[in-house]
Amino acid sequence: MTERLVVIGGDAGGMTAASQARRRRSQDDLSITVFEKSGWISYSACGEPYFISGEVPELTSLLARSPEKFAQSGIDVHIHHEVVAIDTEGHTVTVKRPDGSRLEEPWDQLVYATGASPIRPPIEGLDSPGVHVLRTLDDAAAISQRAGNSSSALVIGAGYIGVEVAEALAMRGLAVTVVDIFDSVLVRTMDPELGSLAQAELEANGVEVAVGTTIEKILTKDGRAVGARAGDQVFDADFIVMGGGASPNVDLAADAGIPLGPTGAIAVDERMRTGVPGVWAAGDAAESIHRLTGRPVNFQLGTVANKHGRVAGTNIGGGDATFPGVLGTAITRVFDKEVARTGLIRTEAEEAGIEVFQGTVDSSTTAGYMPGKQSMTVTVTVSADGTLLGGQIVGGRGAGKRIDTLATAIWAGMNGHDFAMADLSYAPPFSGTWDPVAIAARRAADTAAKA
Amino acid sequence: MTERLVVIGGDAGGMTAASQARRRRSQDDLSITVFEKSGWISYSACGEPYFISGEVPELTSLLARSPEKFAQSGIDVHIHHEVVAIDTEGHTVTVKRPDGSRLEEPWDQLVYATGASPIRPPIEGLDSPGVHVLRTLDDAAAISQRAGNSSSALVIGAGYIGVEVAEALAMRGLAVTVVDIFDSVLVRTMDPELGSLAQAELEANGVEVAVGTTIEKILTKDGRAVGARAGDQVFDADFIVMGGGASPNVDLAADAGIPLGPTGAIAVDERMRTGVPGVWAAGDAAESIHRLTGRPVNFQLGTVANKHGRVAGTNIGGGDATFPGVLGTAITRVFDKEVARTGLIRTEAEEAGIEVFQGTVDSSTTAGYMPGKQSMTVTVTVSADGTLLGGQIVGGRGAGKRIDTLATAIWAGMNGHDFAMADLSYAPPFSGTWDPVAIAARRAADTAAKA
Repeated sequence: MTERLVVIGGDAGGMTAASQARRRRSQDDLSITVFEKSGWISYSACGEPYFISGEVPELTSLLARSPEKFAQSGIDVHIHHEVVAIDTEGHTVTVKRPDGSRLEEPWDQLVYATGASPIRPPIEGLDSPGVHVLRTLDDAAAISQRAGNSSSALVIGAGYIGVEVAEALAMRGLAVTVVDIFDSVLVRTMDPELGSLAQAELEANGVEVAVGTTIEKILTKDGRAVGARAGDQVFDADFIVMGGGASPNVDLAADAGIPLGPTGAIAVDERMRTGVPGVWAAGDAAESIHRLTGRPVNFQLGTVANKHGRVAGTNIGGGDATFPGVLGTAITRVFDKEVARTGLIRTEAEEAGIEVFQGTVDSSTTAGYMPGKQSMTVTVTVSADGTLLGGQIVGGRGAGKRIDTLATAIWAGMNGHDFAMADLSYAPPFSGTWDPVAIAARRAADTAAKA
Repeated sequence: MTERLVVIGGDAGGMTAASQARRRRSQDDLSITVFEKSGWISYSACGEPYFISGEVPELTSLLARSPEKFAQSGIDVHIHHEVVAIDTEGHTVTVKRPDGSRLEEPWDQLVYATGASPIRPPIEGLDSPGVHVLRTLDDAAAISQRAGNSSSALVIGAGYIGVEVAEALAMRGLAVTVVDIFDSVLVRTMDPELGSLAQAELEANGVEVAVGTTIEKILTKDGRAVGARAGDQVFDADFIVMGGGASPNVDLAADAGIPLGPTGAIAVDERMRTGVPGVWAAGDAAESIHRLTGRPVNFQLGTVANKHGRVAGTNIGGGDATFPGVLGTAITRVFDKEVARTGLIRTEAEEAGIEVFQGTVDSSTTAGYMPGKQSMTVTVTVSADGTLLGGQIVGGRGAGKRIDTLATAIWAGMNGHDFAMADLSYAPPFSGTWDPVAIAARRAADTAAKA
């Protein structure tokens, strides 16, 4: 008898799970049906800022694969189909069709990959026309269109999305202001010293940055957003983009009794199984275990969603895969700077009760005597015994991807002193003889040793 | 009583050893005297091609630190002083001063850091004027001057130096031909498939490449080199640069009874001690242990020399340091391509009797939909059980330094499948969701698993 797999959500987590399961099991053995409530599947949300900036001319370029392509490989995808209820006893989902009618779809295995939605901070007037979020391709299209007939924009929230949207809109020629409640941009992922370098790059490119600013109210004219107010400060803007975080879409799961974890996302084991037999979770809606703290986290990253989906799909397909945890490795471009991080920053270490020590090096992307060199700052974080726990990089072209070297060393549990003596590459177009990541690691380990 | 340290050779290995020892011991405790036979110390040999190309306008930019600067920190440097004999029983060295007179200098500790000299292949007429080598700053100055009044050049040998010099001379506007005995460029460090990508980049930039070509004779006119002959083939050129390898300068050591290892370089233990008590070795003249084969190798790289010197100097300074071995990690720029490698290529694995499997991915330096993307090819090599053993990368800007991620994973003994699931960074300006190094590692491990 054919087993039935139903996948809720057609983006990275869900489609990767579907594809992996399909690779391992024939259509006779496993039917695969995907329900996606929007009109898009398998798109690069991470690419949306580069559509808004104008670098990617066609929104459809961000689509990795069409429903038709999936159909050819035996994956039945239904867009504009919203799953509105899960019955974990009867093993069905209730699906709302585009015409509003309902469908009961049975399943033997279920993948919950509903993603996340932008957090709505308590700001008066947030529902006003002219206040945008950036999540789906439709969101990206709306912002891009608005940018085309505007001269200014306000971005509320200076996380990755906020910073990337600010860059994109500035590249489109708009006067852009970014505000954030905290005293530094990218505050959840970078220490303030490094975040301030990203902020400086924004400002150097004409973006106004107002940190420590709590927006209380959206200002409107004729019902449309025309700015925002924070205390006595007023920020005028032709439109507004919410650049803050997102929260996992878990209502459907919670209603069905699928257990959530301490982060509020779906709790999973290392095989991506939820607490309900036959139900798996993947992507932004699911938790991961942080490799360094051992605690559940909800990191909403494309890399994590892909790996979640791969693990779930491999296991559904009859393989044996485990998700090895996350470090929160991430990178972004801020104009001419590359901003990257992995592992723990100071506030994360503090929350986890881990004493940390740091080493920083201000270096350059080439040997000092080469033309075209750009600055590169690297901070490495270690524990009291010198074990590598984190890395942060802000620098010119070629700087950012060095974070993967640190991420790999952290992944392997290396000590800062040992890592500093590892055989890394060198030539004058790329660095000094000792790569800055090695120097920073040594300094961090030295600091720990002296403490 | 003040202990006396004498260092033979004033470049990376020797000066790093001197500096490390000085940091740890006062001048009252340890006197440090360096003898350098050339007129230059502490210079970046790796930077010379970028002086020849015109990118680094001043040769002196390649000097890291002057003898005067070292003197200020209590390191007594004598340039144009050649050590001509070592007495390991009487604990002295015989030094030839610039005026030809001799000096007997006593030592308690001796660092042997004499570097390497270009190999002279058996080619008739190699001593002719117009045949250059590239090793010292004087060599670089001579080649640069010659390039200024020439329209063509022949580079014999397509190792790193040959390829870098070819690029440099082509950037100066010369018609450049590179020849090599082997059927592929960079044959000692890259598999032919990857080497051919570097060759294609040379050719795309107007450099003529003639592999499988054995030069037998330098052709001269009025006593000056005007080309070379290989069988029936004649290569005309205004001047010639030898771009092949170098051999360690060990005659002085051999005469003194300091034992050599199987590679012909100085044998050392992991603390960089030679077989003679009180005598240390560092840099291009010394061996290293390859971490993957356990065998001695003689890798002449600035990174290795610096680490050798650091270990020797730390130990002389009273610390306790060990050299952890090498992977042969290296990177170079070939016009718009970055060429990098670490660990074992197939021929190295074969020589070591290790069965290997490989995975290759042809990808790009950004997500597929981003503008300005460039090609990036990554090959990963694993053992039969999937353990990472090597990596090779040829690609556009940002590709090369990813080799450090692979080098770190190899260093840590990671398996290809495990590494593929490590938390590496992603954003569309930098790669697809799965970094090419991770995809190649998975493919290699898959290939091994299926074999």
